[in-house]
Amino acid sequence: MEIAFVLYDGFTALDLVGPYEVIGAWPDARVRFVSTEQGFVRADAGLVVVPTDTPSSLPNPDVVVVPGSSRPFGPLENRALLDWVRHAARSATWLASVCTGAGVYAAAGLLAHRRATTHWAFRDVLASMGVDVSTDRVVIDEPFVSGAGVSAGIDMALTLTARVHGVELARRLQLMIEYDPQPPFDAGSPEKAGPDLVAATLAQFAAGAGPSEQVASR
Amino acid sequence: MEIAFVLYDGFTALDLVGPYEVIGAWPDARVRFVSTEQGFVRADAGLVVVPTDTPSSLPNPDVVVVPGSSRPFGPLENRALLDWVRHAARSATWLASVCTGAGVYAAAGLLAHRRATTHWAFRDVLASMGVDVSTDRVVIDEPFVSGAGVSAGIDMALTLTARVHGVELARRLQLMIEYDPQPPFDAGSPEKAGPDLVAATLAQFAAGAGPSEQVASR
Repeated sequence: MEIAFVLYDGFTALDLVGPYEVIGAWPDARVRFVSTEQGFVRADAGLVVVPTDTPSSLPNPDVVVVPGSSRPFGPLENRALLDWVRHAARSATWLASVCTGAGVYAAAGLLAHRRATTHWAFRDVLASMGVDVSTDRVVIDEPFVSGAGVSAGIDMALTLTARVHGVELARRLQLMIEYDPQPPFDAGSPEKAGPDLVAATLAQFAAGAGPSEQVASR
Repeated sequence: MEIAFVLYDGFTALDLVGPYEVIGAWPDARVRFVSTEQGFVRADAGLVVVPTDTPSSLPNPDVVVVPGSSRPFGPLENRALLDWVRHAARSATWLASVCTGAGVYAAAGLLAHRRATTHWAFRDVLASMGVDVSTDRVVIDEPFVSGAGVSAGIDMALTLTARVHGVELARRLQLMIEYDPQPPFDAGSPEKAGPDLVAATLAQFAAGAGPSEQVASR
C-alpha cells in the first residue's frame, strides 16, 4: 500500500508526522514523501525534510495525506500540486488531510458539497470554498478523511487505521505510540479556551506566529 | 533561546516533532537540529531530515530535546553524542527527553538516581541504568524533563512551556495546535490496553515493527 505524504514549503510538521507515525506502521505501508519542487522542503517552524518522490514518480498512491500550514494559501495556488492531487484522486482509496490541508482538496475542486473538518481558525475559509465544514475532530466522507488542527492528525490516523485494518491494529498502534493523552491544560478548542484566549491566539496568528496568519490578514 | 533537537539514525519522528511544534513556537526560540553525523538523518519509519548543526557548531544550547527510537540502543553507544550531551548539560537550562530518549542522558551518566519517565516498554532498561523510573506521563526533575512514549512529547512540551513561559503561553500554544485529543480507542497505556494487547504489541516490537525491538531481543 503506497502512502503519499505531501510536502510543500511551509507545511506544519506535526500535521504530517502524527499520521505518518501511525499509518506508516501499517503492515503493508510503503511510506513516500512527494513534493512538486526539487530539493529539500522546509516546514513552517524550521524542520527541513527530504522528499522521496515527485508527482511523476508517484502517480497512483493508495493513500494521500495532505498536511496543513501556518501559511495555508501557498499550496492552494500550487498548480502542479493540485494537478497531481486531482490525478491521484482517481485511483487512491483514501484522501486524507489534517488542519488546513483540506483546503488543497477543495482548491483541486474535489471537496464541493463534501463534509470535512479543518483547523478551527480556517473553518470560514474552507466553507467559502464550498465545503460542508464540520467542527468534529475527525470526519470521514469517503474517500475523504479529515482531521481538525495539527494534533488531530493522530486521531484521524487511528480512526482510519481501524477502518482499513480493523480495531485491533488501531489499538495496538495506539499502545505503541503510548497515546494516552494527558494535556496539562484544557484549552485545545476555541470553545474550551474561551473568547479571550481565542482573540489572543488569532492576534498571534496575525503576527505570523502560527496557523492562518494569512487567514487573519485577508 | 537556542533549542537543540537531537537527530540520530533511527529516531522516532513524532518524539521530536511533538515538542518541536510547541517549544519551537516559543517567542524567543532559535530552532536547531543537531547530529553527530554528516548528511541527512533517517527516522525509523522513513522520514529523512536535514540537520542544521554538529556538536561543535552548537556547544551550549539552552534547551536540549532528545527523542527516542524503535532501535533505542544505537544512540546509547554513540560516543560523540554522549560527549556532546555531557558538555551541553553544563550550561543548558533544560534537558528534555521523550520516549527512550531518556536513555541517552542515562548513558551519558547524567541521570543516576534522578527521576524520569520513558516508553512503557523501556522502563526496565532505564531502571537498570540506575534511573528512578516513573510511570507518569511527564516528569520534571530539574534540569531534566521527560515524557513517556512517543505522543507524550506534546504533554511534556506544554508542561515545560508553562514552567518556562507561564500558563498563558502554554494554553495559547495548545489552542494553536488544537490539542483537544479525542483518541477513538482507549488503549494508550499498558494498563488500559490489557495484557493481551501488551503481549501482541511486544511481539510486534520483537518483529521489528516498533519501539524497543532490541529491548525485547536482549
